[in-house]
Amino acid sequence: MNVEFINPFLLATAAVFENMLSVEVRRQTPYVRKALEPQYAITGVIGLTGKATGTVAFSLPEEAALAITQRLLGERPAAINAQVTDAIGEVTNMIAGAAKARLAELELSLGLPTVVIGRDACIAFPSRAVPIAIPFDSDLGPLVVEVGIVG
Amino acid sequence: MNVEFINPFLLATAAVFENMLSVEVRRQTPYVRKALEPQYAITGVIGLTGKATGTVAFSLPEEAALAITQRLLGERPAAINAQVTDAIGEVTNMIAGAAKARLAELELSLGLPTVVIGRDACIAFPSRAVPIAIPFDSDLGPLVVEVGIVG
Repeated sequence: MNVEFINPFLLATAAVFENMLSVEVRRQTPYVRKALEPQYAITGVIGLTGKATGTVAFSLPEEAALAITQRLLGERPAAINAQVTDAIGEVTNMIAGAAKARLAELELSLGLPTVVIGRDACIAFPSRAVPIAIPFDSDLGPLVVEVGIVG
Repeated sequence: MNVEFINPFLLATAAVFENMLSVEVRRQTPYVRKALEPQYAITGVIGLTGKATGTVAFSLPEEAALAITQRLLGERPAAINAQVTDAIGEVTNMIAGAAKARLAELELSLGLPTVVIGRDACIAFPSRAVPIAIPFDSDLGPLVVEVGIVG
């Protein structure tokens, strides 16, 4: 378990939510994510490359994804659509970007975010990565940032 | 539509299937993927960074994922488990790696593959990426490689 990655992603997530979305998040206890543990219905996924290689998954329920889209665009979409997936992809990108700044020694570059929609979907990391889940509670509901990085 | 990416990924997929898995694939007609178009039940996702930024998604039905795992490990898992997601992640990595070699001028690095499991899951690319879907038929069933790359 790469505990040194917990704090940069924890602080990055809090900073993005507080500064970009004006939403206060309350950290819960990070844990090692189990293989095939399902996420929430909407999950942004972004790859990291550099002196380490990794993936960040930012997962949240549909209702929270709609609320975040409303905060970013000023209008609430009626259902999950491309505006919502673009908004969640962008928040995933902002979280990974803020963490990257705190991990300057790894010289990370960010890939293109994709967003997985699916109530029963599960996103598996490679066994060798052992991702850490960093859960939060917020006024928009629960959310979790999962980070798997290999040297 | 970045048609210049079709051939490297088409040839990379055929090479990985034929040389690594001894499975012949038959190319179908590539098309521009619609927003929120669902994939097959198992999808490997990997990020690309370099002079361009992108994501590759390699999607296939459960049965084909089990058959590929059997070819790689010599044993057929009874159900989708971490062996299967590791195998599909590794094939996704091989396809992206073979395409990267054909796109040397972009100096691409590959992220860590993740694998999405979910019969109704949909993986959305950013609107600005307009992914191309490259479908194949094979003796293991249908499969599709989706590529979204931005300058």
